[in-house]
Amino acid sequence: MSGHLSPQGLRQTIRSGEHRGNTSGYAPGYVQCNIVILPADWANDFLRFCQLNPKPCPLIAASAAPGDPTLPPLGDIDIRSDVPSYRVFRDGEMIEELPDITGLWRDDLVTFALGCSFSFEEALLADGLEVRNVTAGVNVPMYRTNIDCTPAGPFSGKMVVSMRPFRAADAIRAVQICTRFPSVHGAPVHLGDPDLIGVADLESPDYGDAVSVEKDELPVFWACGVTPQVALEAARPPFAITHSPGCMLVTDLRNSQLAVF
Amino acid sequence: MSGHLSPQGLRQTIRSGEHRGNTSGYAPGYVQCNIVILPADWANDFLRFCQLNPKPCPLIAASAAPGDPTLPPLGDIDIRSDVPSYRVFRDGEMIEELPDITGLWRDDLVTFALGCSFSFEEALLADGLEVRNVTAGVNVPMYRTNIDCTPAGPFSGKMVVSMRPFRAADAIRAVQICTRFPSVHGAPVHLGDPDLIGVADLESPDYGDAVSVEKDELPVFWACGVTPQVALEAARPPFAITHSPGCMLVTDLRNSQLAVF
Repeated sequence: MSGHLSPQGLRQTIRSGEHRGNTSGYAPGYVQCNIVILPADWANDFLRFCQLNPKPCPLIAASAAPGDPTLPPLGDIDIRSDVPSYRVFRDGEMIEELPDITGLWRDDLVTFALGCSFSFEEALLADGLEVRNVTAGVNVPMYRTNIDCTPAGPFSGKMVVSMRPFRAADAIRAVQICTRFPSVHGAPVHLGDPDLIGVADLESPDYGDAVSVEKDELPVFWACGVTPQVALEAARPPFAITHSPGCMLVTDLRNSQLAVF
Repeated sequence: MSGHLSPQGLRQTIRSGEHRGNTSGYAPGYVQCNIVILPADWANDFLRFCQLNPKPCPLIAASAAPGDPTLPPLGDIDIRSDVPSYRVFRDGEMIEELPDITGLWRDDLVTFALGCSFSFEEALLADGLEVRNVTAGVNVPMYRTNIDCTPAGPFSGKMVVSMRPFRAADAIRAVQICTRFPSVHGAPVHLGDPDLIGVADLESPDYGDAVSVEKDELPVFWACGVTPQVALEAARPPFAITHSPGCMLVTDLRNSQLAVF
């Protein structure tokens, strides 16, 4: 049982290969991050893409220098072994999924750690709100929108959003809660009519699983960390590594430390 | 022209009887208040009503003692003369409208100053949002809802809301902005389907004027200062005085001083 381990203890079980799966629900209270690893000659454009699109791509930390596998702001981390499962891309195509990338490490690789919705979902749940995908035990539904990201070099694309339904008063409360957490996607980007952001059918998400939306509820849409993944695949860098979906980097940062007020 | 007077200068023109009308747009940047004046034996229940229903009845200041016509926290104020127009009620019926209530003053009267939407509208406009009733130059539309206020003694009733339409992203921004101002009604109480709060027809407001709501807009509803007026009239106190609609107490408090963060 690694369910009640500290982030440090959990990372030990991941580093040793004992824990290889999803990190959802593990180390509650601590920030988990999306990971993107790129060669240095692609890293500056990706960094600019994140800075230009902070809602879908909220950058929490990056390597101090190319080739450095540590991320001191997030804990005692070796990024080559501390994520349960990695996806390796060549020319934009995923070629393998691995539990450890030490053998692929290069001295030009730069790591980016991006905020993830687990943090704000925890804040919503702690406030007593129902988060439908959590209640239903499914992945949050995600949709490609017609909202253009601001391009940076080869990185561009449409914003992907996640959706959680709420009654209006809870949607307003969710805006307040998530506003406190800009580094994990922040306030929603849309609520109400999905058509207005180019989402035709809530029951057919592009990623994840559909959830019920009751008559007295509004769909509420957050910028989603799948956005940079889609931009990355479309940019087709010769080499890239990401975490596998749901298999995040667990950090020593507490979710509450991300609150700006 | 009293349009560019300081709050102190404007109150002088009101006290002298020179300015007797609406205060909307005067002394920009300064807090204007709804006023309720009640005999001391009704004041405690009204105070409890405000404290139990802070969104429609955000109390900014009250008399230090019965009979005291000053409100030092709000400036050098004589509440008997510093509001442009008063409404006098006996047994819940308005019997007259007066520019000065010095002749009616009693040593058992208690004054309540409540926050008003002018303050948050100014914050919305300052952020670049369009406030439809301001653009259209009409009174904001207001509606009786099916939301019960929490009763206190003889004071009870349904919440009255004001409505301003916004596109979703602006509605989300409006929630953020108004959350900073809990003492002027704070965040909206509802958005989207009016039926869910018992509002049947947006084009037929119970008070104020209808405004257009475009197809890509959501109606956004705020708790409204008409709520305590309605509760007051229903409670039928033997004697009460309020400001006349739109003819507010102009204070020395800056709107920015009401921001909680």
